[in-house]
Amino acid sequence: MRNINEDTITQAVIAAMCACPNPRLLTVMTSLVQHLHSFAREVKLTEDEWMQAIQFLTDVGHITHDKRQEFILLSDTLGLSTLVTAQNNAKPQACTEATVFGPFFVEGAPDYEHGADIANGARGEPCYVSGQVRDLQGRPVANALIDVWQSDEDGKYDVQLAHASAEHEHRARGRLRSGADGRFDFRSILAVPYPIPHDGPVGRMLDALGRHPWRPAHLHFMIAAPGYQRLITHIFRNGGTYLDSDAVFGVRSTLVADWVRHEPGPAPDGTHSEMPFYTLQYDFVLNPAAESVQA
Amino acid sequence: MRNINEDTITQAVIAAMCACPNPRLLTVMTSLVQHLHSFAREVKLTEDEWMQAIQFLTDVGHITHDKRQEFILLSDTLGLSTLVTAQNNAKPQACTEATVFGPFFVEGAPDYEHGADIANGARGEPCYVSGQVRDLQGRPVANALIDVWQSDEDGKYDVQLAHASAEHEHRARGRLRSGADGRFDFRSILAVPYPIPHDGPVGRMLDALGRHPWRPAHLHFMIAAPGYQRLITHIFRNGGTYLDSDAVFGVRSTLVADWVRHEPGPAPDGTHSEMPFYTLQYDFVLNPAAESVQA
Repeated sequence: MRNINEDTITQAVIAAMCACPNPRLLTVMTSLVQHLHSFAREVKLTEDEWMQAIQFLTDVGHITHDKRQEFILLSDTLGLSTLVTAQNNAKPQACTEATVFGPFFVEGAPDYEHGADIANGARGEPCYVSGQVRDLQGRPVANALIDVWQSDEDGKYDVQLAHASAEHEHRARGRLRSGADGRFDFRSILAVPYPIPHDGPVGRMLDALGRHPWRPAHLHFMIAAPGYQRLITHIFRNGGTYLDSDAVFGVRSTLVADWVRHEPGPAPDGTHSEMPFYTLQYDFVLNPAAESVQA
Repeated sequence: MRNINEDTITQAVIAAMCACPNPRLLTVMTSLVQHLHSFAREVKLTEDEWMQAIQFLTDVGHITHDKRQEFILLSDTLGLSTLVTAQNNAKPQACTEATVFGPFFVEGAPDYEHGADIANGARGEPCYVSGQVRDLQGRPVANALIDVWQSDEDGKYDVQLAHASAEHEHRARGRLRSGADGRFDFRSILAVPYPIPHDGPVGRMLDALGRHPWRPAHLHFMIAAPGYQRLITHIFRNGGTYLDSDAVFGVRSTLVADWVRHEPGPAPDGTHSEMPFYTLQYDFVLNPAAESVQA
């Protein structure tokens, strides 16, 4: 420990963890140290670059607050989120695929009845969404908790609005329960492509890398029901831009669906729409929880 | 890009950087993404662990401010700082070795004349430090800028004091110039072992890993002179504790020196010391800057 050099430092750090009481933590940290050091050796990281990295991470930390999560954005744009999601959500092909969680979920969104307008004032063309939650045998999953969230027509989530406050809270997000028949329906607004927040360090990184910050139009879902693996996913809008270059690598072809445009006329909720509107129909198939499979 | 899975995500992220205008950045980020993903695959990082990592980095960011750099502390404790220092400071054996920068350097420390007391009120047993800055041929390096910083007898740097303010600023730190003969001398206080700040996320990490936060007693130096590579190093106190288990892996045996204890009596500055005091003598040998070697 008195003459550590670039060749011996990795083993020295690992040796220092020999009293770690948590075997899983030891496994994770050993691998982390090995890969971190391999990276620094491989590129022969300079002292200036190291300092730039320290400053970059400091900036990521300082722009992060309870409504902006720049570290998740960093993980998303480096593909780590997609990798972690994919390797933890292997499931039968008939199940609905998972994709990245993203930084815009908010706890405590309001509960809505079927048919409600979850836009709650968020601006955009009307969109009526319906579907069914089922199990692998095609049976309805009743009373599943369905969290939905999306951006408005300007590509902004409520939490991104300039004066995010009571007035803007919980727009275009909400929670519903599937019915006895597994079905749900609600009104919201048309999803549009938007850039991830790119006025911070992650935006500067993308710019320096020659990458754009855009995501294809999508609607977020998180669906939970006892006995099933929680599903975190999006539905992507077919025919939209950026489906082939999502800044956070979240698109899966099975999650691309048609938003059908309708001229003014009778709407799915029984009213007459004076303006054009969209409908989206998508069914979700949940994977049994690991314990349920064994049971 | 529409069916990225855990096997294809890495290439997808690398492909997204194909328009990067900066070849070095592309090299660094390609390697970073590969190693980050290899780590996540190797340990099969779970979604809960990923979220814990996001929260950990968020905590590191939030505790960091202009006088506390938790990301440097994280890099130091994971051995990354020592690796980067070592691989960028290969030099002839006769040169003084470099070690980690640490998180406690402060820009704008006061300038002192030779013989001055840089403690400036910091508490500790008196210590008189002297030495010479030389080149590889043994010739004195005149007018070298010498930055010195250290903790007080409680193991705290000025910037760590509870009410770090004008009153506490710039204690036990300062800048001197070597004389025409390359020599310098100043009065300060005895260096003691201390724990790195461990009341934050890095401290919690060390604790979870079964590691202690202690560093052996040392004095920081940064020495710069035109035509020479800047030297960032410490001198470690011989015989002290933690020389073999430095929490930041900074010890090199060539940097361990004797702090000699003296009974009350004549001090090096010509005064009579009523209390015991220490002396430290250490000479520094600078490496020519790369350009100077070529010239």
